[in-house]
Parts: sequence; C-alpha cells; structure tokens
Amino acid sequence: MKKKYIVTPGPVDVPPQVLLAMAQPIIHHRSPEYTPIFKEVNEGLKYVFQTANPVLTFASSGSGAMESAVVNLLSPGDKMLAIVGGKFGERWFDIGKAYGLDPIIENVEWGYGVDPGRIAEQLKNNPDIKVVYSTLCESSTGALMNIKALADTVSKTDAILVVDAISGLLTTPLKTDEWNIDVVVGGSQKALMTPPGLAFASVNNKAWEMVKKSKLPKFYFSWDKARKNLEKDTTPFTPAITTIFGLQAALKMIKEEGIENVWKRHDRLASAMRAGVKALGLDVYTKAVAPTLTAISVPEGVDGKAWPKVLRDKFGVTVAGGQGDVTGKIIRIAQMGYASTFDVTVALSAVELSLSDMGYKVNIGAGVKAALEYLDQNK
Amino acid sequence: MKKKYIVTPGPVDVPPQVLLAMAQPIIHHRSPEYTPIFKEVNEGLKYVFQTANPVLTFASSGSGAMESAVVNLLSPGDKMLAIVGGKFGERWFDIGKAYGLDPIIENVEWGYGVDPGRIAEQLKNNPDIKVVYSTLCESSTGALMNIKALADTVSKTDAILVVDAISGLLTTPLKTDEWNIDVVVGGSQKALMTPPGLAFASVNNKAWEMVKKSKLPKFYFSWDKARKNLEKDTTPFTPAITTIFGLQAALKMIKEEGIENVWKRHDRLASAMRAGVKALGLDVYTKAVAPTLTAISVPEGVDGKAWPKVLRDKFGVTVAGGQGDVTGKIIRIAQMGYASTFDVTVALSAVELSLSDMGYKVNIGAGVKAALEYLDQNK
Repeated sequence: MKKKYIVTPGPVDVPPQVLLAMAQPIIHHRSPEYTPIFKEVNEGLKYVFQTANPVLTFASSGSGAMESAVVNLLSPGDKMLAIVGGKFGERWFDIGKAYGLDPIIENVEWGYGVDPGRIAEQLKNNPDIKVVYSTLCESSTGALMNIKALADTVSKTDAILVVDAISGLLTTPLKTDEWNIDVVVGGSQKALMTPPGLAFASVNNKAWEMVKKSKLPKFYFSWDKARKNLEKDTTPFTPAITTIFGLQAALKMIKEEGIENVWKRHDRLASAMRAGVKALGLDVYTKAVAPTLTAISVPEGVDGKAWPKVLRDKFGVTVAGGQGDVTGKIIRIAQMGYASTFDVTVALSAVELSLSDMGYKVNIGAGVKAALEYLDQNK
Repeated sequence: MKKKYIVTPGPVDVPPQVLLAMAQPIIHHRSPEYTPIFKEVNEGLKYVFQTANPVLTFASSGSGAMESAVVNLLSPGDKMLAIVGGKFGERWFDIGKAYGLDPIIENVEWGYGVDPGRIAEQLKNNPDIKVVYSTLCESSTGALMNIKALADTVSKTDAILVVDAISGLLTTPLKTDEWNIDVVVGGSQKALMTPPGLAFASVNNKAWEMVKKSKLPKFYFSWDKARKNLEKDTTPFTPAITTIFGLQAALKMIKEEGIENVWKRHDRLASAMRAGVKALGLDVYTKAVAPTLTAISVPEGVDGKAWPKVLRDKFGVTVAGGQGDVTGKIIRIAQMGYASTFDVTVALSAVELSLSDMGYKVNIGAGVKAALEYLDQNK
C-alpha cells in the first residue's frame, strides 16, 4: 500500500465532487437537459476569464485552443511575435511555422519575465506584426509574465495580444477585459480542477475584427462556427459531455470560494512553498516567480533525473522534472487548483525525505517548519 | 420521478464499469502508471479497427479526426472525392472546401448505399483524385455503405480510401486490413461505449506514403507527431486521461464479448427493431439498412418535429429526429454499444405509446411482439 499524491503543474488532482459529477449517465448534447448545464458553464467561464465576451469551448487539449488562436486570426505570410522563455512559448512559434507564418521570436532568459519595453520596441520596428503571443505562466520554468504591462503596450497598437493562460489561469490575477487582453487561452486540467479534454478561448471585439480578415484554413477549430453555435448555447461538434459535467461542478466550487480568494490562496501556498524551499538551503530556480508552481533547482550532488523518480516510486509523490534546456536541473511542484495548506506540507516533507534518502544532507523538518510559520503568520 | 433512457445514435449509454473507471483519481500522462494503460488501449483499438497498423488517438470529437484525414493526406488544390448521401458525407466536402481543395461530390440518394461502379467510373474519369472519402454508416439516414466493394475498387488505383466509421464502428463488420481500407476514422461515444472526447484514425502504409507528400498545414492533428509519440506509448499533447480510463474498461468488455459477437448482437437487435417497426405498419426510411440505427419514417398525420419531444418529455426516452433534408420526416433510434434485448423492447414500447398518445391509431403491443418473436427465433 502506497498512498499517492500528484503535485505536478497539471494535470492536477480532481476534487471528488467533480469526479462524481462525471460519473452521471450520458445525456444528449442537443437536448433541453444539456442546454442549461452548458449555459451555466459558459457563465462560469466568463467569470474565470474575467470577461463579458464569449468564451469558446473546444473538445481538445490546450494546444488545440492555442492553434485556434493562430488559424482564426492570421493569414499566410503574416508576421507574428512569439515571446519565448520556455517550452510553451516555443509552441507559439512552432504553430506559426506549421501554418506558414513569419514568426519573430522575442527571446526571454528562462526563468525570467518579459520586459514590456522590448515588446514596445519590437512593435515599433515591425509595425506589420499582427499578433503578439505570450504565456501567462511559462510552465516549464515557473516564470510569470507581466501581462498587465504587456496588454497596456499592445493595446496602444493595431496588434492584438494572445495569452496562453493554460497553466496560469486562476492561480494569479488575470483581468481580461480590464487589462485589454484580446484573447486568452485556457485548459480544463489545471486550476480549473477538471480532467484534461476541454480547451477555451476568450475573444474580444478587436480580435473578432481580425478574425473576419483571417485567411488561414480552419474547420474543427473555427471560432466563427463556435461563436454561432454558442449563441444557441451549443457547440458545432459533439462536446466532451462528461467533462462538461465535471467542469460545471468545479466552476461552482470556484464561484463559492470567489475568484479573489482563489488567487490569494494560490499566492499564499506558493509563498509558503518557497519559504520552505529556501529554509532547506535550496534555490528557487525562477526569478520572476509565478504562484502557479515552484521550480526548485536540483542541488549539487543530487541526480536531477533520478530525483523525481525517487519521489514518485519511493514516496508516492508525483512531481514534474525539468523539460528542454533544464532537464535534470529542476523539479517542479504545484499547489494548483484543488490545493490547500497541507498540500504544501506533503510536498515539502517529500522533498526533505527524498533528498535525505538520496544521500543529500538536509535539515529534516526545516522546510516544513518555515512553510508552516509563513502560513501561520499570513492568514 | 421519470426514468430516463437514451437511444440516440450517439452519444450512447455508458456502462457503469466505464463510468466508475472514469471516477479514478487523475494520474500523470507521462508516468509509468499511465503507459501500460495507454498501451492496452492501443492494442484494444487495433482489435476494434481490425488492423495491425497504428491507431492514432486525439483528444477531440470525431470531426477532429475527420479533419486530420484531410490535412495529413492532401496538398492545396488536390482533388478529392466525397461520397455524399447525408449530413456526415457532406462534412467531408465541407472540410475539403475549408482547406482549399477541389472536392468532387458523388451524390447518393439519401437512405441508399453508394454504387461502387460509380466510384470506379469517377476514378477512371478523374485519375487525379487522390482520396475517396466515405462514411461507413451515414448516421443521418441509417444507410450502410458497401465498404468492402468500395475498398476493392479504390485499392486497385493510386487513390486511397478514407472511411468515417464514427457511428458504424463495431456495429457491423469492418475489416480494415483484410479489405484494404487505407484510413478509418472513429470516435469514443458510439459503440465504443465511452463518453465523447476521443477520436481515432488508423492509417496503413499506402496512406503513410501520401502523408509524406502532404503540404496542407497541421499542428494539433499532425499524424506524424502522433505516430512518433505513439511509438513511445504516448501522445504529443495532454491526453483526455479520464476518458482513456473509460475506454480501457470499455475495450475490455468488447474483447471479452468478442468482436464477431458484438457485430452479430448489433445485427440481431437492429433486425428485431425493424421487425417491430414493420409490424406496427410503419416504414423503415432506409433502403440500405445498417445495423447501426433504425430510421423510422414519420407516418402521415403525425407531427414529426413533435414526436421526438413527446418521446423525451412525456416518456423519458431520448431519440434523434431527422437532420437536414429529412427534418421532421424521420426519427432515429439506435441499439448501439451497451445495448441488449430489452433496449429493443423499451424503444418499441415507447414508439407505440407515444404514437397512441399523439392520436395516431396503433396496434399497441404488436411491435414489441414481433420483435420478441424475431429475437426468440434468432438466438
């Protein structure tokens, strides 16, 4: 018997309420039983995305909604700017390339946020950039981008800003309408506490104007089709009905807690986690820390590829290792979505015990103590 | 209290084993716990698709996999042939149009199957047709296409045959490798007895050769990406983990029953259903009947748009109405996937009671009696 915990930055632990909602018998998606459910989900998504604009839902992974934010906005040969500070920023570039666009990269050092001044400069030097693509939290590094400043910069130009908020959504304030963010992309399996299989895109009027001119081919991910159907509270293609049931239950929990409290909770837990990490003499890898996840630098003398395996196989705690350039150099732990005080305790306890088990000298209990002190002092 | 039944041609009733499997806690999709599950699912899919070739899995509706069978095979301006005998045949044409192809339509009268001789002629007159797209069962009419003969015709040419088996798969024999079908597309929410959200494409070597030359843009639905990941028992993007759990349970049930028995069961239940319909003096709309679903012509004097609503709202039985050209003219009932003897009884009882309730003179019990007699004599 080994009790198991998942503390990766997605997919995340799904609350029992959500799992039980998903065990309901199937109903037909073109029926008066389904309509009010999808309506409620759409209202809930607007709240989560902090927008009065339609939030389109797709049966796909988050990457599908990312692709939708390229094919519905641009035309062959168009110039786009991808802010790349990790694996998911790179994905914007890859999608642009796949669709024959002319993607410019704004490289950001891994672990750091983007300098909005650089983007202003890029837009000035390349006035033909149609869309700026950014992540909110770059999951591969844990870095938070200053989306408010970025939106401030981009909204003054003809370009539009698309934000991949797949991992960041709900973990940190993102005020879509108030900040003038044109498009926000999300996924179900992060702080939305629902299994993977649903992806979302909120689209404002400035972006819809661009949609009208877009000539890239699209069918399944067509925003136009999705919006026309959304007006009738439905989707153009069979939705992932069961996952919609789950999302309905998750959105209800989020509404009950209140989005400001959800943001605060993530910030508080991530701060406690970082306090614990530092108290153990370990380094937080990320410079521009997001409350989405904590990336811990693998200390010298520890095998960084083996560490996540020890955590998982010996202690039952699944964390994420590093990807791309930081493979073997960091581990990533999230208190995301359905996470509370004692998820921090579990994660830090596992970090301490696993390091000691791997022969690394660690002051057992010091991390947990520091985290608890932080939590006790910051209620 | 009203007990509810869903007898639409998808989504279909999901067995409790599958629902319970989906209520399991989330695990990470890049973990040694997930790998054997996905491996088992992939083996099961090969069995269902009757192929030794890889079956690619996407987190999407069936239409996403249909789109994948266009964008991975063709290049801008390519000629394709869409066999159109209903709404889903039309979808092949629509996707081709959306991607700037040159789609030819082979019109088939609704409710009828396609004449393979016509396709041979089309291919002879248009030797530049690269791909022939057909449905297996056209869900909007219940018509079965003679895929064996079609594959026989197409396999003698350089063209390849793509079959949309989303609704037909498992309800009728489809021998992908033995019949030389190049690509078969499927979905989770039909006779695979799993909630919607997964779509599949089996691809043979002749089709893979075409994939190499295809120049249409693709990213999320890239077969090349999917195959490379499948070789490592994974997917390029986060899979719909929970739905994969469900599919694993469903595939286990299918394997235990044996695919020949699954085919026979569908044929037997559909035959009993048709016997019941005829005994009530009603007409089966479809000429080339598929064992996938039964399309009943709305008898004169009955409001065909109201009938499905009466069935659902007054009797708790959800059926599908007609789509497109046959809106209000037919109702569609399926004994698909998790269906047995008494699903036929329920459907026919509901047909009888609802017709009587709507003031149509019906010999109550005659349909059920005829169906039971058929079932009793054909074990």
